[in-house]
Amino acid sequence: MADCSYKLVSRKYKKENTIININGNLIGEGHICIIAGPCSVETRDQTFEIAEGIAKLGLKFFRGGIFKGRTSPYSFQGVKNDGFEIFQEIKKSLGLTIVSEVTSVSQIPQMINYVDILQIGSRNMQNYELLKDVARTKKPILLKRHFSANIEELLLAAEYILLEGNEKIILCERGIKTFEPMTRNTFDINAIPLLKEITHLPVIADPSHGTGIRSIVNPVGKAAIMAGADGLIVEVHNNPDQALSDGFQSITLQMLSKLLKDTEVICNLLHKKFN
Amino acid sequence: MADCSYKLVSRKYKKENTIININGNLIGEGHICIIAGPCSVETRDQTFEIAEGIAKLGLKFFRGGIFKGRTSPYSFQGVKNDGFEIFQEIKKSLGLTIVSEVTSVSQIPQMINYVDILQIGSRNMQNYELLKDVARTKKPILLKRHFSANIEELLLAAEYILLEGNEKIILCERGIKTFEPMTRNTFDINAIPLLKEITHLPVIADPSHGTGIRSIVNPVGKAAIMAGADGLIVEVHNNPDQALSDGFQSITLQMLSKLLKDTEVICNLLHKKFN
Amino acid sequence: MADCSYKLVSRKYKKENTIININGNLIGEGHICIIAGPCSVETRDQTFEIAEGIAKLGLKFFRGGIFKGRTSPYSFQGVKNDGFEIFQEIKKSLGLTIVSEVTSVSQIPQMINYVDILQIGSRNMQNYELLKDVARTKKPILLKRHFSANIEELLLAAEYILLEGNEKIILCERGIKTFEPMTRNTFDINAIPLLKEITHLPVIADPSHGTGIRSIVNPVGKAAIMAGADGLIVEVHNNPDQALSDGFQSITLQMLSKLLKDTEVICNLLHKKFN
Amino acid sequence: MADCSYKLVSRKYKKENTIININGNLIGEGHICIIAGPCSVETRDQTFEIAEGIAKLGLKFFRGGIFKGRTSPYSFQGVKNDGFEIFQEIKKSLGLTIVSEVTSVSQIPQMINYVDILQIGSRNMQNYELLKDVARTKKPILLKRHFSANIEELLLAAEYILLEGNEKIILCERGIKTFEPMTRNTFDINAIPLLKEITHLPVIADPSHGTGIRSIVNPVGKAAIMAGADGLIVEVHNNPDQALSDGFQSITLQMLSKLLKDTEVICNLLHKKFN
Repeated sequence: MADCSYKLVSRKYKKENTIININGNLIGEGHICIIAGPCSVETRDQTFEIAEGIAKLGLKFFRGGIFKGRTSPYSFQGVKNDGFEIFQEIKKSLGLTIVSEVTSVSQIPQMINYVDILQIGSRNMQNYELLKDVARTKKPILLKRHFSANIEELLLAAEYILLEGNEKIILCERGIKTFEPMTRNTFDINAIPLLKEITHLPVIADPSHGTGIRSIVNPVGKAAIMAGADGLIVEVHNNPDQALSDGFQSITLQMLSKLLKDTEVICNLLHKKFN
Repeated sequence: MADCSYKLVSRKYKKENTIININGNLIGEGHICIIAGPCSVETRDQTFEIAEGIAKLGLKFFRGGIFKGRTSPYSFQGVKNDGFEIFQEIKKSLGLTIVSEVTSVSQIPQMINYVDILQIGSRNMQNYELLKDVARTKKPILLKRHFSANIEELLLAAEYILLEGNEKIILCERGIKTFEPMTRNTFDINAIPLLKEITHLPVIADPSHGTGIRSIVNPVGKAAIMAGADGLIVEVHNNPDQALSDGFQSITLQMLSKLLKDTEVICNLLHKKFN
Repeated sequence: MADCSYKLVSRKYKKENTIININGNLIGEGHICIIAGPCSVETRDQTFEIAEGIAKLGLKFFRGGIFKGRTSPYSFQGVKNDGFEIFQEIKKSLGLTIVSEVTSVSQIPQMINYVDILQIGSRNMQNYELLKDVARTKKPILLKRHFSANIEELLLAAEYILLEGNEKIILCERGIKTFEPMTRNTFDINAIPLLKEITHLPVIADPSHGTGIRSIVNPVGKAAIMAGADGLIVEVHNNPDQALSDGFQSITLQMLSKLLKDTEVICNLLHKKFN
Repeated sequence: MADCSYKLVSRKYKKENTIININGNLIGEGHICIIAGPCSVETRDQTFEIAEGIAKLGLKFFRGGIFKGRTSPYSFQGVKNDGFEIFQEIKKSLGLTIVSEVTSVSQIPQMINYVDILQIGSRNMQNYELLKDVARTKKPILLKRHFSANIEELLLAAEYILLEGNEKIILCERGIKTFEPMTRNTFDINAIPLLKEITHLPVIADPSHGTGIRSIVNPVGKAAIMAGADGLIVEVHNNPDQALSDGFQSITLQMLSKLLKDTEVICNLLHKKFN
């Protein structure tokens, strides 16, 4: 396997941590970033209510899906292109940095006008054509681990992006598929310190998908920060029980506020900056 | 989950087995099809040697990858467009039906001119944009189960294709990721009779990826047929130890000949036709 | 790991197949054995009705649990010592060979008077104290693979028994725990030919636990035989829907009769004897 | 499954946290306990050197295995009864509370004279005869989750002990078997807050087995405390690279000292006592 292994992604290749600067906000090396927002952009009003709440809490990064790759064709598939205008308003009026998932090469040309961080979702981690095309935009990329990819496979997916000359990659552990039925996924806490040992790229955690249970997003999120994660991405909804997707794992704005306070205390402990 | 479940794919929707007619060769309902060929098309000579061997054994279906989605960017990525001419020659001179994998929407326009069955590889089973675009070609589709998808997820992926009005779908069980390190994947034999119970679509087995071990491709392939599979897809190489990909699990033409003889005997036992 | 690996269990140590002779019935090397009976001995009448049905079908081996290790303490725990008398009657009146599970060292002294093959259940595969004590009885042992043990660990458990000087071991693949929720376990068909390659011991299959679904016990059982298994162990009940344990995966006597006919045809094909 | 579920172990049955008092040291409800020591007691000198180091760091609980259930019969099986005298000396001279694993019912009568907390190892979590016999000693029990048991199965194993009238149970998450090959197990961080929600029993974490990698024991241990664990059990060795078992995951006394300092800071943050 020696000839198959990662190179550019490794600390052997680049010792110092990669820091990504997005609109003046830093990610990596002691800068903890919190990305929050709904699983799906549903309506202008719902999105704004959540985005405003997030901005009021002092956060800089807003997430929201508009192209939804759903297991069932009968599930809500996203507002698609209608989301772009909403993103533009949020950026203008609230100054938030937008994170959203690309699910097809054909979406890229428009996406890059409205979205600041292009997310590669779990299911597309090994969609190499998409990885390469997104890499070539030179935009920052949030690369989620596939729920059944091992750590080496995640690093090799990042290697595809690095080989296109784009090193603005944020890796994201979001839980893996195991035999445990009580949780949606098993959050692989080991992956956080292991990835930080092996690679110079920032590593964040998604405790929403990593657990699938609203009440344990907070403890698992805090645990990830304590284990060395450079940030969190969290699903937040103004009305979780009415959400069109992932409501069961979405936290309220009030719960987000609590999570931020807890995380800030840990950041102080670890001498890390919090944005 | 009731509103998320499959419909068109189900026997409740369509009771009788779907039979797919490709160039006069039938797949499904008692017609056992054997698809054989190299993991990757490497050179014209290698491909022809294998294809001729396969045709001599009386087989009708030839598989060969030209766009290879590989875990590592440093692994062989396929001959790409150079493969089309080779496919055309094989079709003309040997009369074989071609099966090859599509890994990106952009490949579809050319692919449909040279390839008879478009394969959706394991990693793209939940690449819904690709599924929909391939479905719209109205070509037969070989849909491989993702190595970490459960049976319901495979059926829902097929549902995406059926909803585009294409029911020429061949499902393929190719092994799932488990904790067992001795084999590349664990071939899920249970999935064969379960899928046959639930869906009207043909179901074939890939004992090459399902085991990752040349010496047990034969027994596991036979077991799949005995459990009700409508056919096999097998990696065959003229020189497995020199193959650019998957050599360790590729069988020789001689081993293929033995597998065919064994399978034919089982088909007689089960009163199934063998092509 | 070199110093940790199996020795006596390996074909490198002993090339020819081990054949076990129990009351004149052979197991291994072309002698297919079918072990059938209820998950649990419930009452004398229920047990006899099943045992008589099994004997009428020409089978020689009867299974029935009397000490039940159950996940929940509130589930039926078995008739315990009351089962011995029932076993004795079955042996006397029907001439069947008895297979039953030992769950504790303390049961051994009595067990050996009534039971012909001592079964080590899945959960006790790595209960080494039990393995050693059972081995010393010199009785034949049916060693079930733990549902999360890999193949090497199963072989090492057998090695513990062989080191006590007992080689009358029948290995049993009974399904492993995976992420698939539709089946109770995933029957690891790959394990059958792999084990036959590595070890000289007989290997049988348990399609009841391996699937957890009555309707697919037949196809998966046949597949196992086709893949090289030396026999089957199957849960059978006179009234599966009223069974005190595992009813959903137990087949009826009528379904057993069909399975036997099917298996006999395969045995003829493979030139194996059927008992 | 309603009739199979846990009762006594649940917070519905007992709302307030169970606190276990062992020799005056409390475990549970805000009392963080750290249990440290070698995987195996090897010699008197090695054991004493580690125990003295642990006592000097102010710890109260010493762990050390004397009956080792090993995957291979050729691996070191423990000093067995020779360990009792060493335990007695450690208790007398250093005042440490002893934690050691019972692997067989026959060891119990002697064990209870020398050991304060009887450990049920991962492999024996569903060895119900052992669970019941250990429960009846009325000693505190450290119950480790089997590496393939789901959370409900762990709770049901504890239920077996509670039904014998012993509620001095410490649950331990120690990692589960997944497809990830880079780590020995995947530490299930989700299980910590979930177990604390469901049950009143104390829950501790084993980051040594949970990772299998010395360098990430510290971050994963801290993460577990942050997620709500009531303590840690950690493998420590005076010379990890020469250890007769588990050396690769054992930390040095110096690394233990660092872990304790880090954990103490977290305990202050969480307003928990540290012993």
